Amino acid sequence: MARKPWHGARADHRPRKARPRFARGRPRPLPLSPDGPAILYGWHTVKAALENPARRILKLWATENAARRLADDGVALPFAAELVRPDVIDARLGPDAVHQGLLAEAEPLAAPTIEQLEPAGLILVLDQITDPHNAGAILRSAAAFAARAIVTTARHSPEATGALAKAASGALELVPLVAVQNLARAMDALRARGFQLVGLDSSGEVDLADVVLWPAVALVLGAEGKGLRQLTKATCDVVARIELPGSIKSLNVSNAAALSLYIASRQLARRSDG
Amino acid sequence: MARKPWHGARADHRPRKARPRFARGRPRPLPLSPDGPAILYGWHTVKAALENPARRILKLWATENAARRLADDGVALPFAAELVRPDVIDARLGPDAVHQGLLAEAEPLAAPTIEQLEPAGLILVLDQITDPHNAGAILRSAAAFAARAIVTTARHSPEATGALAKAASGALELVPLVAVQNLARAMDALRARGFQLVGLDSSGEVDLADVVLWPAVALVLGAEGKGLRQLTKATCDVVARIELPGSIKSLNVSNAAALSLYIASRQLARRSDG
Repeated sequence: MARKPWHGARADHRPRKARPRFARGRPRPLPLSPDGPAILYGWHTVKAALENPARRILKLWATENAARRLADDGVALPFAAELVRPDVIDARLGPDAVHQGLLAEAEPLAAPTIEQLEPAGLILVLDQITDPHNAGAILRSAAAFAARAIVTTARHSPEATGALAKAASGALELVPLVAVQNLARAMDALRARGFQLVGLDSSGEVDLADVVLWPAVALVLGAEGKGLRQLTKATCDVVARIELPGSIKSLNVSNAAALSLYIASRQLARRSDG
Repeated sequence: MARKPWHGARADHRPRKARPRFARGRPRPLPLSPDGPAILYGWHTVKAALENPARRILKLWATENAARRLADDGVALPFAAELVRPDVIDARLGPDAVHQGLLAEAEPLAAPTIEQLEPAGLILVLDQITDPHNAGAILRSAAAFAARAIVTTARHSPEATGALAKAASGALELVPLVAVQNLARAMDALRARGFQLVGLDSSGEVDLADVVLWPAVALVLGAEGKGLRQLTKATCDVVARIELPGSIKSLNVSNAAALSLYIASRQLARRSDG
């Protein structure tokens, strides 16, 4: 089956040649380029990657403590593991990354195409959400509410690596990310496959809780501040709002995603119960 | 009425003496110390502060564009406004702060005490949530769902300034923050005032949607990763979970806050309708 990689896996799948990565002196920060490996750090993120048979780990750096915790949890270390002191990982990631003693380089995951998505349950469509913390938190909520996939634009989206992977807390291994060149065209393809396209916008004409959902729903969310682009909004079947009783009328986009996943998944579950 | 300041407003309320803040050469970054002024930046954050009669602005830096947008929206500039180029604000805040041409120094806001909180509707209690982006997003959701106040620990909480204020997107002006020394004691005081203490935890014994809420509810949330501390949990009347049908069983804390505010506010609204 032809599967498109998320942000282009490297054509060359051979493991990198082993060579000393830590020259003496100042370590260079890791590149986060779209064509490089995925950078995964943090306990949940790296553990989930090690447990995912579809994820190819190229290299793992672990502190002794973290390696022991992994062993305690029955997680096997890959051949390319190196025990290091925490400050070695600090130096690679910068002072703000909470890595909890684990850092891995891995091949990006393969992802399905729009045509391979089964028209059932929930998926998310993200319109140029560029902040990796928000995108990562959305991925985590998507896994928590059993969403089947996330469709994003290939441009104006954060890479499936680094801060996004950390914020996703392991969800990168669970929810396929489908990157598309043209979002409106992808939405038309989703509709042709049977998905109802429900846009979320604070100016939406109807409360999401009152929308009668189809058995397959794509929740469409726009970027912080900008919201849904005009063409994205026009391509939706319905544009809904989340009812907010307070004096602020818009939410952080990851909070809006969590709420719409909750509202939609409750309705689909009630429907399949009845 | 005696009102306690949020993280200690300065005793000296006189405006600072006007003096050139930008010596030639490299500008010094602003201090974010608990005893200093609140640093507010970004369109929504600064506009809301300018519109809040209770907020004392000490100094405002605005780009020409931002000043014009404020004038267009009918917001008067304070006496201490200075028109600057965007790079002057960049240099003060660092490259990652999205300031949208506005930066203000302001007195911290006064806040009520626990004894002054009216026992009605929703409040939030945050147990050592230290990340300013999460705390700011929670503040924004609290304003969106008409929560009356947020109670936090004075220690192990981010300051009501900088990144928190930005993520709150104006909500800092709307929802009072009550900082307490001892959270368990504050929770007892809330119970004595008539609040039901509902802890949120992924291991909660009951689905939050099934909890019969009192007319005054305090939703208690713990930090990312650590969750509610043992004593905090033991002090709750009930510990509830948010039902998650997927394979990840915990959410980003700001997403958990948004969901619990949604679920609780819907139930309270239904109750007061019936």
